[in-house]
Amino acid sequence: MAKRFSADKYVEGILAGDRVMLSRAITLVESRLASDLDLAQDVINQVLPHAGKSVRIGITGVPGVGKSTFIEAFGNYLIQAQNKKLAVLAIDPTSQRTGGSILGDKTRMESLSVNPQAYIRPSPAGKSLGGVTRSTRESIILCEAAGFDAIIVETVGVGQSETAVHAMVDFFLLLMLAGAGDELQGIKRGIMEMADAIAITKADGENAMKAKAARAEYQNALHLYPVAASGWLPKVSVCSAMEQTGLDTIWQTIDSYLELTHQNGFFEKKRHDQNLQWMYEAIRQGLEDNFYAHQQVKDQLAGIADEVKAGRKSAFAAAAELLRLV
Amino acid sequence: MAKRFSADKYVEGILAGDRVMLSRAITLVESRLASDLDLAQDVINQVLPHAGKSVRIGITGVPGVGKSTFIEAFGNYLIQAQNKKLAVLAIDPTSQRTGGSILGDKTRMESLSVNPQAYIRPSPAGKSLGGVTRSTRESIILCEAAGFDAIIVETVGVGQSETAVHAMVDFFLLLMLAGAGDELQGIKRGIMEMADAIAITKADGENAMKAKAARAEYQNALHLYPVAASGWLPKVSVCSAMEQTGLDTIWQTIDSYLELTHQNGFFEKKRHDQNLQWMYEAIRQGLEDNFYAHQQVKDQLAGIADEVKAGRKSAFAAAAELLRLV
Repeated sequence: MAKRFSADKYVEGILAGDRVMLSRAITLVESRLASDLDLAQDVINQVLPHAGKSVRIGITGVPGVGKSTFIEAFGNYLIQAQNKKLAVLAIDPTSQRTGGSILGDKTRMESLSVNPQAYIRPSPAGKSLGGVTRSTRESIILCEAAGFDAIIVETVGVGQSETAVHAMVDFFLLLMLAGAGDELQGIKRGIMEMADAIAITKADGENAMKAKAARAEYQNALHLYPVAASGWLPKVSVCSAMEQTGLDTIWQTIDSYLELTHQNGFFEKKRHDQNLQWMYEAIRQGLEDNFYAHQQVKDQLAGIADEVKAGRKSAFAAAAELLRLV
Repeated sequence: MAKRFSADKYVEGILAGDRVMLSRAITLVESRLASDLDLAQDVINQVLPHAGKSVRIGITGVPGVGKSTFIEAFGNYLIQAQNKKLAVLAIDPTSQRTGGSILGDKTRMESLSVNPQAYIRPSPAGKSLGGVTRSTRESIILCEAAGFDAIIVETVGVGQSETAVHAMVDFFLLLMLAGAGDELQGIKRGIMEMADAIAITKADGENAMKAKAARAEYQNALHLYPVAASGWLPKVSVCSAMEQTGLDTIWQTIDSYLELTHQNGFFEKKRHDQNLQWMYEAIRQGLEDNFYAHQQVKDQLAGIADEVKAGRKSAFAAAAELLRLV
């Protein structure tokens, strides 16, 4: 077991912007040890009043879209041109399969990873989606308390993690490639409708024309969607990490979004709703964890589920039967 | 309390296609009386082997799209041209506000409601979404056991009920109006991506041209979506209930979908997955019902939720605190 400190010690370090202490605190909230839970919650609750003052940006896209390259270029732009302190976190429940992690290979973001204004934290490996999203959400709070005022949460655009990320960020950016077709098939249905903006990457060289055509096409498609509750109309733009173009447009889009939603109250409302949503989600998770850990349930679940699947037992009768076991 | 029969009596009546007994059994599964629960589950489990042999079609669209008129025309087409026995059910959790129900006014489907090959059941009023979806799902089973081989589940296209309906049908049809714009705003984000087909209604008179233009536009937009797990490419067509046109095309679309998904195994897999999904959903609902009914939780929830909403207490600390109460 890693070394543990007192809650005060963690809090003091985080508020002083000590990134070693920040890393240790994140390791603490990522811990699955029951003995770490209370300490972690103590730290979180103490730094909470100092958190919240950042823009939280979710970024997704299929593998191959150039996510790391984009985040490196956009991150450096945020630091240099917008004077931000940037933390990059990652959600990647698939890493439990490979044992790796999407941000594990830090060399992918060479210049950003050595920038003193940036903090990059790899995704924790070997945890369930529920575990990953929980610790990512708490890591956001810790990073904010440590003074980071732009948080990027990266996710791979192929699984269920997008919905979880969407529920913890202010702004959701979808990266797409020009030449729509096969590339799109990797994107889960429903993700396009969650996007506050789409950025078409690699719009350079002979790709530039294709990217502009794709922009028009996506902008048209987005117009067919119903208007979001925020009142915001999703924007499509093109960018090139290689040529460092389009990054300012993307930031201006985010900035316009923030202006609009601060003005109409949606920003605050969304944060409040997200807080509540996570509480109810944590309650649900806790109830289910207890239920499915019950020995009788463990013994009988598979057999009953087979009956239900095959249509031999009604879903509700089966649920009632299982609920009576605890 | 309404008259109750023995489970055998209900089952016998349903299997004989007795629609009075079918209606009584649906009333039974809609009942919230604890004393009715076991009897209802007994009936469901007994008829279950006789259910499942229908095509379940979900239909949604904003108010004003002409849903009742469409269902009446399409329902009569299914009965006359396709020799189907049709049951029409409705999900309308909003009816708890008005006390009415979307199918309550049977005169809206005059010819269908008197057709001996059709069975129309109004939405139960005064129940939560969870309650409505549960009883609708069980009503599907009862209708199938009574010999109905086409089930239409109607929903209003403005709330959360679409997701619930999507999870209980084989095919999801979205009705849209030509002249996209304001009409779209009533449709919840994400619904378009759930559609297996879009039918543009009221494609008659001077609307016909506009409807055809809208068809092309939506078909283009749908091409931008990732391919569904079924391998099915959503189709867009135009129809007119008034002129009785386009109904055959819609049925052919549904039929092609059934052929494809029976062939590639998706149909059976989806039904199995839906069964399991409802079991887990019922377990979750049962766990939450018990938890939130707990007196200590009732007493403290609002206060703790306010702390979380305002960001003074972390969502996870709050959840842990509440979970400790039971």
